[in-house]
Amino acid sequence: MSEIKVITNILKTNEEVTAKNKQRLDEKNIYVVNLMSSPGSGKTSILEKVIGRLKNELRIAVIEGDIYTTKDAERIEAQGVEVVQINTGGACHLDGDMIKGALDELDLDAIDFLVIENVGNLVCPAEFEIGEDMKIAVLSTTEGNDKPLKYPLMFEKSAAVILNKVDLIEYTNFSKEEFYKDMKALNLNAKTFETSCISEQGIEELCLWIKEKIKIKRGGTI
Amino acid sequence: MSEIKVITNILKTNEEVTAKNKQRLDEKNIYVVNLMSSPGSGKTSILEKVIGRLKNELRIAVIEGDIYTTKDAERIEAQGVEVVQINTGGACHLDGDMIKGALDELDLDAIDFLVIENVGNLVCPAEFEIGEDMKIAVLSTTEGNDKPLKYPLMFEKSAAVILNKVDLIEYTNFSKEEFYKDMKALNLNAKTFETSCISEQGIEELCLWIKEKIKIKRGGTI
Repeated sequence: MSEIKVITNILKTNEEVTAKNKQRLDEKNIYVVNLMSSPGSGKTSILEKVIGRLKNELRIAVIEGDIYTTKDAERIEAQGVEVVQINTGGACHLDGDMIKGALDELDLDAIDFLVIENVGNLVCPAEFEIGEDMKIAVLSTTEGNDKPLKYPLMFEKSAAVILNKVDLIEYTNFSKEEFYKDMKALNLNAKTFETSCISEQGIEELCLWIKEKIKIKRGGTI
Repeated sequence: MSEIKVITNILKTNEEVTAKNKQRLDEKNIYVVNLMSSPGSGKTSILEKVIGRLKNELRIAVIEGDIYTTKDAERIEAQGVEVVQINTGGACHLDGDMIKGALDELDLDAIDFLVIENVGNLVCPAEFEIGEDMKIAVLSTTEGNDKPLKYPLMFEKSAAVILNKVDLIEYTNFSKEEFYKDMKALNLNAKTFETSCISEQGIEELCLWIKEKIKIKRGGTI
């Protein structure tokens, strides 16, 4: 009994803290994306491209989640937007308390669009709400088309799934047919994009779609 | 206090169960590898290649850890060795209890070499001993050379690190120089291999090294 009680309390605490974070973000009319994937799928590279295209239209900030190092935060900072680094020190996902600490560091009156880049992990981050308006999952072609069925929660919960590194698909055995079939079985409503951060294929389409989402939340204005 | 107590008990239980599993495996003189990586780094492909080369010399069995599906177990079974599938049903790593259940399914008198393919996750599996003689981590070139520093525990704890998909390195910005520098800083003793499951580069070298490890445990005979 005591074990169950403790675990319930931990989850409840995360829900409560996250609800407060979400309220803070909504009051400031900030659109929030929780960006998730395996290590090395290209989250940071996609984010660099998206920021490059949207930073003149939107005030963007990024929360970078990493176990250790500030490598990704340095890459994002070079794009000229505000970044807060969370080092989880071993923890495999971001949670409400960590996000609260990061929000305290940001000027929420000066942000339209906040991207939270989660720890590289296709499993655990999908279990924790962190105050986002939507989750976006990235899968790279080099990881294989079997990943949606093997790690379903991430793909079920995401509003969009970005198939990245399509420039490398010809060197892999990735089957787009299988991927789209499995995605439809798991999540009929997920929007899908095919991107390459080398050729920039799909980046413009992704940016337009994100802007539409932001417009809807912000009542037509961005 | 109660929270700390519960978490301690969970870890202690895993240690105790794992110690018993290890004892069972040692009594049968079975050499055990815990194979870990991000999703899609090529654990199963490497294992197919290793089994193909070693199955005539060694009696091999595999425990396949996946959250859902039996896709990897089916691939390994096609190699003609015994496989037990563990579906964790959401859990992000294998633990002692799961391994105990799998060992109960195997004929331990008929195994020389047991490979436990962990859940695809570069974070959580590194925290849990599961009765192995050594951990091997796989990193693919398409994931980027920054992964050892970003996910250090996995690379610190592994006896060997396999850099896989070297056939794709020319299409990536992976720096071998940075990779080896970071690996040396984290783990001077780790053996490293460069492999490709397309060209079979490095597979023979890996198999010879594994056989040497098995020989040492088994007193010179395999």
